[in-house]
Amino acid sequence: MTYPVKPMSKYDADIVITYNGVCHTDIHMIDNDWGMARWPLIPGHEIVGHVINLGSQITDLKVGDVVALGCMAQSCLTCEPCIKGLDNICADLVFTYFGDTKDETGTHPHHGGFGSYMRTDGRKLFKVPPSIEEKYVGPLMCAGITVFEPMRHFLNGTDGTGKTIAVAGIGGLGHVALQFAAKMGAKVIAMSRGTSKTDFAKELGAHELLDTTNGEAMAAAAGTIDLLIFTASGGFADVNQYLTLMKPYGNMYVIFHLCVCFFVNSRDYPSNNLHIFFVPLSSHFCGIPAEDVKFNVMPMVFGRISISGNPGGGSGDTKLMLQFAAEHDIKPIIEVFPHSKANEAIQKVRDGTIRFRAVLKNDLV
Amino acid sequence: MTYPVKPMSKYDADIVITYNGVCHTDIHMIDNDWGMARWPLIPGHEIVGHVINLGSQITDLKVGDVVALGCMAQSCLTCEPCIKGLDNICADLVFTYFGDTKDETGTHPHHGGFGSYMRTDGRKLFKVPPSIEEKYVGPLMCAGITVFEPMRHFLNGTDGTGKTIAVAGIGGLGHVALQFAAKMGAKVIAMSRGTSKTDFAKELGAHELLDTTNGEAMAAAAGTIDLLIFTASGGFADVNQYLTLMKPYGNMYVIFHLCVCFFVNSRDYPSNNLHIFFVPLSSHFCGIPAEDVKFNVMPMVFGRISISGNPGGGSGDTKLMLQFAAEHDIKPIIEVFPHSKANEAIQKVRDGTIRFRAVLKNDLV
Repeated sequence: MTYPVKPMSKYDADIVITYNGVCHTDIHMIDNDWGMARWPLIPGHEIVGHVINLGSQITDLKVGDVVALGCMAQSCLTCEPCIKGLDNICADLVFTYFGDTKDETGTHPHHGGFGSYMRTDGRKLFKVPPSIEEKYVGPLMCAGITVFEPMRHFLNGTDGTGKTIAVAGIGGLGHVALQFAAKMGAKVIAMSRGTSKTDFAKELGAHELLDTTNGEAMAAAAGTIDLLIFTASGGFADVNQYLTLMKPYGNMYVIFHLCVCFFVNSRDYPSNNLHIFFVPLSSHFCGIPAEDVKFNVMPMVFGRISISGNPGGGSGDTKLMLQFAAEHDIKPIIEVFPHSKANEAIQKVRDGTIRFRAVLKNDLV
Repeated sequence: MTYPVKPMSKYDADIVITYNGVCHTDIHMIDNDWGMARWPLIPGHEIVGHVINLGSQITDLKVGDVVALGCMAQSCLTCEPCIKGLDNICADLVFTYFGDTKDETGTHPHHGGFGSYMRTDGRKLFKVPPSIEEKYVGPLMCAGITVFEPMRHFLNGTDGTGKTIAVAGIGGLGHVALQFAAKMGAKVIAMSRGTSKTDFAKELGAHELLDTTNGEAMAAAAGTIDLLIFTASGGFADVNQYLTLMKPYGNMYVIFHLCVCFFVNSRDYPSNNLHIFFVPLSSHFCGIPAEDVKFNVMPMVFGRISISGNPGGGSGDTKLMLQFAAEHDIKPIIEVFPHSKANEAIQKVRDGTIRFRAVLKNDLV
């Protein structure tokens, strides 16, 4: 199908899409599982392309630039969070294909990256560093930023020397998190149920694997972890068990993945402002229990430990993440499908048989 | 009574005590409520005095210096936390009158500040800035550092410009916290049950008082607080209510006070390494429920909020706190008693009628 694009704004950029990641969110929108799809539906929020046309006010991009767009299609750009690069928490954030963008040409629905071309607000595009192969960029815009952000905030930068970073769950998010943590120079512990993923975790940069079902190993690991990134489905209900692993001044992060386990193995997130849709569905979450999480305040207080939640990251952190991934050759593990076989990719994501991310390559233009 | 002091170590300092704060911990030790007192018992861990004699290795102090000692009488000085000034989490921390110090003269029980003189490890003494009146220093070493530490870590310094800091509970800790927050330049919100403390809170620097029993006011305050220091007894069980008040990237701190509400209105803490004594007594805590605290992960994750616990502060933060208190004339509200009326002070603290801290003045030497 074709659709008429919105009028060109002075802030717009036209891009030809080269690659677009497929996320479980997309599948649920395609299947209208949440009853919120609007037609025509063009999903996709892990978008990579080349600039082919620019509005007059977009001066930091040029035709031919390789650019990326995640789930943030527009934000106010004037609030304190936007100014600080924390547009992920802008109250006016517009999601890539759930929202309407506004400019001097009016208000228009924004579409996603399952297509050949896109007209979008050029102020929200990220330049892709030349050393990252384009096919890897889409998943970095999702899984990458979600796990990078807590590390970068905990370390107040990207130097993890002397710190121990643990990643619970070695899946779509975890396999990228292990790479980031290792390249930051931290001691890296992969946490998994059982030891079957030991070799894989070590290939990704883990120094050791901690089997969370092994009581002795867990006891021996008490008080050794500075930063714990919790990407595993389920299990977080036992917060007390994880608190004992932490060093004083340590920080545990529950990242968005936990909440979107509802999306059946989803390793991604749609947008900060989407939670209104989750709330009535919370009994379906498998990552966190429908009931409240419980923990004992004592070990948190005496251990001087923090528990944080993270739904993604802003533009500032996304730029830093892309640069860091480029410098350190961090790559998600992907399967590439041509656009003409999009339905095959969609079915594999739907089935949960993708290891670990599906990416569509535009072979139609 | 008199007691023989330990042999002088090259690291020791002898001080004549001028003031010593009375903490509920002291009362419980005097009353042997925990069955852990050892005799002779000389309580006191909010100690201020003048140096009268120094070991050969203590070169950064001189005779006549005004110095303070809190609850940390000794630490290993070689571990990473000690090197970073975070000796509050040193595994070998020695509490001022529960522990045994070690040096080249051997191992000796350490005594507290309810006395005229003290021999103690000079490496753990803090120089008191000359502009702080000595009588105010003791409570700063307890209440002061406990509320200063989370602010200083959240702000990564002491500049609160543009931030909103809320203090829940206007008691022994809260009345000092409000002063610190105001002098850091933050917008300061005092949180209290009812509005009776409005004028008092404003005198201490609060810009407004939020009545936590007023549903409308609480709803209107949603999403407005960057840092919430929770010093109130009870109430933290409803974590979800407080989560809604937080701005994204905000941080809630549950400080030690909550845990020591067991000490009946205590506004202080004994030591990081004391928690082993609390655990079996947890059903007596009034600040936190005996059962685990519960909260919904969703608003924490989507709001990008952190929940932290804090048991006190290390030497680095204590030095910074004393300097900040000196520069900004921050004073706890105290009642001073001569040593000769120590029993009267003890009884007022025992009764909970002190506003807000009792301090003993040494009138015996």
